Amino acid sequence: MDLYIERDELIRGLGRVQGIVERRPTTQALSHVLLQARDGGLTMTATDTALTLVAQYPARVEEPGELSVDAAHFFQIARSLAEPTVHLQTQPGNRMSVRCGSAEFTIHGMAAEEFPPLATRDDRSSLTVSGGDLRRLIEETLFSVSPDDNRYGLNGAHLEELTTDKGQSRIRVVTTDGSRLSVSEAPFSGQFGMGRRMLLPRKALGEIKKLVEADGEAWRVSFGENSSTFSTPSLTLMVRLIDGEFPNYRQVLPTSPRRTVRVPREAFSAALKRVAIVASDRNHSVRFAFEPDQLVLTADNVDLGHARETVPAELQGEPLFTGFNVRYFQDLLAATRSDQLQLELIDVLEPCIVRLPERDDALFVVMPMRLD
Amino acid sequence: MDLYIERDELIRGLGRVQGIVERRPTTQALSHVLLQARDGGLTMTATDTALTLVAQYPARVEEPGELSVDAAHFFQIARSLAEPTVHLQTQPGNRMSVRCGSAEFTIHGMAAEEFPPLATRDDRSSLTVSGGDLRRLIEETLFSVSPDDNRYGLNGAHLEELTTDKGQSRIRVVTTDGSRLSVSEAPFSGQFGMGRRMLLPRKALGEIKKLVEADGEAWRVSFGENSSTFSTPSLTLMVRLIDGEFPNYRQVLPTSPRRTVRVPREAFSAALKRVAIVASDRNHSVRFAFEPDQLVLTADNVDLGHARETVPAELQGEPLFTGFNVRYFQDLLAATRSDQLQLELIDVLEPCIVRLPERDDALFVVMPMRLD
Repeated sequence: MDLYIERDELIRGLGRVQGIVERRPTTQALSHVLLQARDGGLTMTATDTALTLVAQYPARVEEPGELSVDAAHFFQIARSLAEPTVHLQTQPGNRMSVRCGSAEFTIHGMAAEEFPPLATRDDRSSLTVSGGDLRRLIEETLFSVSPDDNRYGLNGAHLEELTTDKGQSRIRVVTTDGSRLSVSEAPFSGQFGMGRRMLLPRKALGEIKKLVEADGEAWRVSFGENSSTFSTPSLTLMVRLIDGEFPNYRQVLPTSPRRTVRVPREAFSAALKRVAIVASDRNHSVRFAFEPDQLVLTADNVDLGHARETVPAELQGEPLFTGFNVRYFQDLLAATRSDQLQLELIDVLEPCIVRLPERDDALFVVMPMRLD
Repeated sequence: MDLYIERDELIRGLGRVQGIVERRPTTQALSHVLLQARDGGLTMTATDTALTLVAQYPARVEEPGELSVDAAHFFQIARSLAEPTVHLQTQPGNRMSVRCGSAEFTIHGMAAEEFPPLATRDDRSSLTVSGGDLRRLIEETLFSVSPDDNRYGLNGAHLEELTTDKGQSRIRVVTTDGSRLSVSEAPFSGQFGMGRRMLLPRKALGEIKKLVEADGEAWRVSFGENSSTFSTPSLTLMVRLIDGEFPNYRQVLPTSPRRTVRVPREAFSAALKRVAIVASDRNHSVRFAFEPDQLVLTADNVDLGHARETVPAELQGEPLFTGFNVRYFQDLLAATRSDQLQLELIDVLEPCIVRLPERDDALFVVMPMRLD
């Protein structure tokens, strides 16, 4: 292998694999990136066995070849380089030289044959979704995936297709950790094609979000028996899906709220941040008093004291006094952008539905807390 | 206590005490800040017993009074506030209310009487040094104070006065951790006045550096029996000095180098950063080959591989091949600003002197490493 590549392309490629490779791998290859120089380009492959990224980068290839090297170490070297072009060349003994300006590194690598073989793909049909929509689908749902991998059915995102009243085909992503739930939808073209219901794992969601570079990119998403593939013309991410029965979430979506409240995003967010300082120690509990023209937030902490905030709010319906985990609203605000939130409430211990005004393609549910 | 204070002044004051108070205090008061409202201002006092900061801030005092509260918690609250003016008011039961716009906090405090009494000062004479010089004296020496508090005589900065050939009075600060040494000097007016030789502790150096806000500030430095006081018109930092015999550092300052080398700062710094990637695992050792018109840096690592860098350099004298801890040069570069460094070398296992061209008030010594 002997090639010249732009330093910025090298950094971009190595940056993308950092989230895939494992920090404490069970076998060395899982911390490595496989480099393959072929006609007109360098292919970088990384895998943790459940998630595999293969991406091509433009390079002037003097001699084809392949080698795998430690991804984190090579990334650190690439980022330290100062000149625009980098010369990569294999050396005897599975080594690779990296030359750039006055700098020269020799990296100990591993023969390409020792890199795990790629899973064979059995994709059937595929759908196409825009980069902007794909990123939004993930941003609006990733935060409510259960962080506990042992929570069967909750440790990934549920996907389904639906058709709107106006006949638009949409992909719907739903996540829940048992205390809150997020639903986000986006239009797609092509065939949904997911066979039996499986979940897209949390790590894959995070990596896909990072891989989206432009709103206008066309992303092809296809499904096999127990895998899914996300691709653009220059990269392919293969994802092993998680087996698991997602709960029947429709039953927690109440249809007739008794109260609706409009709150301005900025003031609500700033107020939550302040009461969270005091609430932060004991289960993040904050009291929400919905009054006719304001929302009063209060929190208490045995050690720290008391906090009280008021947010202007338009309430339709009877006043209500209830409690929520302040973090759930903070996460929701961080994942969305609208200027206002619409809260729909039924009663003290009933779930709160949050909608984004002017948007019919996202919906959130936050379960209340029992106040002491 | 009842007063109105600008939020930015409150944040500035509380920010300054964060480095003084203890995170895991043996007694509650050592994590507290004492607030005292008096004519025309708010005084904030914090101490870890070895270091005490007393500073005044403008405030509209409606009613004098005092109270101590947790410094980290109050700082977190202050930074979350959105409006420009903050209203502080003591409440029954050693509480304090904090009101700002729509936000209202109540903080549990402690009676001012429970705050430790300030040490009595026994300053004799004092000297005056500019803020810019004081900051530089610390920046150029702090990095080579021993991080080990048990290294008798090395865990603080040595101070002395001297008179230059041109009759200028200077304060000299010297630090060493046994493997490197830093000397920095600055002009002063007044009396040096330090009685017996004692050391200024590392934590005090760091806090003084943070307290300097402008080059033009006049800082008054005075010494008592075993304490020192650094002050401006609005703040006073009292420091308990460390007992300890600083080593006779003059014997490691060689006077007749056999080789001098000029290296450009930027290229040297970038090259060190790159070889450090490979050197970082095993005692940071890098080989320095001083050649007639270049410095060649190389490092090896059993796991990671090899790195080689060349830096343009003008050598006066015979070529030399030796080794250094790369971190020592990186720290030195981070603490200084000159465009070039002058390295003065005697022989393989002799110390390297580093001077900043055009500057006669700073000097650094780096001990070499024995190469395997």
